Amino acid sequence: MSTAAERLASFSSALTCAAIPQSVLEAAKLHVLDTIGCGLAAHALDTAPQAREAMREFGESGVATVIGAEEGLNARDAALVNASLCHALDFDDTHPGAVAHISVVVAPAAIAMAETLGASGAELLGAVVAGNEVAIRIGMAAGESFHARGFHPTAVCGVFGAAAAAARLRGLDARATTHAFGIAGSLASGILEFLGDGSSTKRLHPGFAGHGGVTAAALAAHGATGPSTVLEGRFGIFHAFLHGTDLDIEPHLADLGSRWETPRIAFKPYPACHYLHAPLDATVAAVTEERLTANDVEELVMLCPPGAVRMVLEPAASKARPRSEYDAKFSLPYSVASYLTRGNVDISTYTEQAIGDEEVLALAAKVRYEVREFDTDDTAFPGGVRIRTRDGRVIERELPYQRGDARNPMSADEVLDKFRGCARLALPAGDVEGLEGSILALEKQPDLSALRALAGAARPVAA
Amino acid sequence: MSTAAERLASFSSALTCAAIPQSVLEAAKLHVLDTIGCGLAAHALDTAPQAREAMREFGESGVATVIGAEEGLNARDAALVNASLCHALDFDDTHPGAVAHISVVVAPAAIAMAETLGASGAELLGAVVAGNEVAIRIGMAAGESFHARGFHPTAVCGVFGAAAAAARLRGLDARATTHAFGIAGSLASGILEFLGDGSSTKRLHPGFAGHGGVTAAALAAHGATGPSTVLEGRFGIFHAFLHGTDLDIEPHLADLGSRWETPRIAFKPYPACHYLHAPLDATVAAVTEERLTANDVEELVMLCPPGAVRMVLEPAASKARPRSEYDAKFSLPYSVASYLTRGNVDISTYTEQAIGDEEVLALAAKVRYEVREFDTDDTAFPGGVRIRTRDGRVIERELPYQRGDARNPMSADEVLDKFRGCARLALPAGDVEGLEGSILALEKQPDLSALRALAGAARPVAA
Repeated sequence: MSTAAERLASFSSALTCAAIPQSVLEAAKLHVLDTIGCGLAAHALDTAPQAREAMREFGESGVATVIGAEEGLNARDAALVNASLCHALDFDDTHPGAVAHISVVVAPAAIAMAETLGASGAELLGAVVAGNEVAIRIGMAAGESFHARGFHPTAVCGVFGAAAAAARLRGLDARATTHAFGIAGSLASGILEFLGDGSSTKRLHPGFAGHGGVTAAALAAHGATGPSTVLEGRFGIFHAFLHGTDLDIEPHLADLGSRWETPRIAFKPYPACHYLHAPLDATVAAVTEERLTANDVEELVMLCPPGAVRMVLEPAASKARPRSEYDAKFSLPYSVASYLTRGNVDISTYTEQAIGDEEVLALAAKVRYEVREFDTDDTAFPGGVRIRTRDGRVIERELPYQRGDARNPMSADEVLDKFRGCARLALPAGDVEGLEGSILALEKQPDLSALRALAGAARPVAA
Repeated sequence: MSTAAERLASFSSALTCAAIPQSVLEAAKLHVLDTIGCGLAAHALDTAPQAREAMREFGESGVATVIGAEEGLNARDAALVNASLCHALDFDDTHPGAVAHISVVVAPAAIAMAETLGASGAELLGAVVAGNEVAIRIGMAAGESFHARGFHPTAVCGVFGAAAAAARLRGLDARATTHAFGIAGSLASGILEFLGDGSSTKRLHPGFAGHGGVTAAALAAHGATGPSTVLEGRFGIFHAFLHGTDLDIEPHLADLGSRWETPRIAFKPYPACHYLHAPLDATVAAVTEERLTANDVEELVMLCPPGAVRMVLEPAASKARPRSEYDAKFSLPYSVASYLTRGNVDISTYTEQAIGDEEVLALAAKVRYEVREFDTDDTAFPGGVRIRTRDGRVIERELPYQRGDARNPMSADEVLDKFRGCARLALPAGDVEGLEGSILALEKQPDLSALRALAGAARPVAA
């Protein structure tokens, strides 16, 4: 009887582009592009320079591209720096069943390793899908359990995804890949204590996971060993991290290679907490369809499930007047007031300057809410709005699934628009176009030289 | 009210050699020397080359010395490689109250960081003591809890010790050191699943902890932040890793700077599990004092508490015939039979060749045991022996504390003998003497150039 790690290793070590359905490959490429766009925007805003500066101490130079740095780094440190940057705006994707950010761990680690090894685009793409599927399956087995215990599944599950991608690119066989997973289990870490004060550990976690996965694969490649029972063993990840929570990974292993979770990873249309997306988009729909302006609105009531209330509506006083850009990303009153006042919600909504706009804050103070239960399953982030207009009309809109979820998808064009908007903050239009074209045809690229354009990313905002 | 991390940071960031009692400094130096000796012996046996080879991929060269490698590495990777090597023989020290290996994490990380920064011997020594005390205090607050939950405290507590030492050497103030601890909390990892199959993750854990601590301090130095409530917070280390176990770190913070735990770290006289040391040494005492030979022994009965029975006596069949060098280190029947047959127990006892010696195995099969409770507290590893001789005498000996514990100490000369025996396996006598002299006068060294001798360690056994 094979262990869970052995079965994941058998799957991921043998995966090639040819075995992956075209729709899965297309989704994977869009997610790589989206992740890179998030990193470029974060770099433009100079949001997270600490990791880049610290890693420069340890690796003078390397062939793996670092966003916004002329000199590259070794694969491990490039993965750390780029992943932390790509997560810095909280604008990157999430798998709803795994309750974890996925591409932000797997893609930077896979790219850095692929560049280091001189891999082709097809090899990179196969590794990305392998890494996604491994991280997601482990996350789906656990569901909300990691969060409940105080661990960050993006990091804890992510390290296995990064290890799978790095091991695949290195050509490790199933046995060595199992050892890589066994070693990755001793690098799985990341606690949620940042929630108390918005510490930078939140954005570092995907970087630590990528770094750990690349390290684990390297150690396994050189003969180090790890336990094959790393997941379900007596002192494995599930028991140690989840305190003996009864869980069953079997349903997530049995259909490896036939069911694909990569296309179910949800994109984010807004650089803010998932919980506020549906009520915000319901408001956008109401305002657009009824041709309202901020002046038409007499009363604005958010309709949200209890989970959303806890995350983005309460405590009401601090949500109406966020203390930091980070707090603002978790405030529905602020975000919806920004939309009504300025006509859009994007990266510029969550800057230090923007959150001091008294016109927006005055409107945010008037936003009310009602608890509403929705029929959707617990992997959805539903929400709605009820608007009473000055001329007495009552308009209500609801979204059972937030936009970007596979059940309310963003179109490829919407994802590309998001990428272009992000990337243009840091790169000239020609480079943006070049990157987009290369990544959308990744399986045809003989090498990854097109990604070197990321090194040239500038910082117009800081400059 | 300061958090636990803030109080540990206030202590460790301000600690200098001048504030440390001479007896503590003397103990710290012996532990540094002992740790290095363990690493040299492991290198001579070529026990753990994987980490060195894998890290070479990531850092071409650096100024931190790597045992047995002409070219150095950056501080982070040198810490990883040397710590894994120093732990490879399971011959390094342990703090009984923290139930963790301490020096093997702190010393290699501190040395690598000190070399990189060009620090003096006194600065290194202050950092080592700071790191020891921080790791030990966190470990003492938890006691056996980490083990009970499946985590390896050597790694989980060690990362804070390495962070303290690295932050101290970098001259970070208390606030930045608190951030380093907050970041270290997101790098705390290490599960006990290796117990099932003797995987190499066991020996990698001190390396991962050292690497993580050096990384955390570097990130904090560059402005990254971590939660100050990393230990006792709602999602901090204690709650996440220990499942809400009720514990109180306050008694271990209140006397920082007046009570010193460094001198209570226990040395190991034998490269084997702590549980077998006391019954083995009781046998040594009986045989030596009564001038017995193996032929005089009619019956040999080990007297051990239940914890020791589980670890080094049962299951009886596999303990009588260890399958690997690693298994042999956890077999009291094999170890005591080796002593009676060959007259000593040392590194050569636990080689692939030695564990196949049928004369030893025949005697091991005859070793019996009785459960005996001892009056010592739960930080001791007591044990004894009852020998019935062919001429009808019954000889009994007991040790309430194993030799090397502060309550049954190894003398400085015994520690030096152990170091010399280990170091001479890898280095010429002149280098061994030079290293010993330099480390024993560490506080007087203007720089750490004497440690470069470690780079020249050879591999006579493999050669």
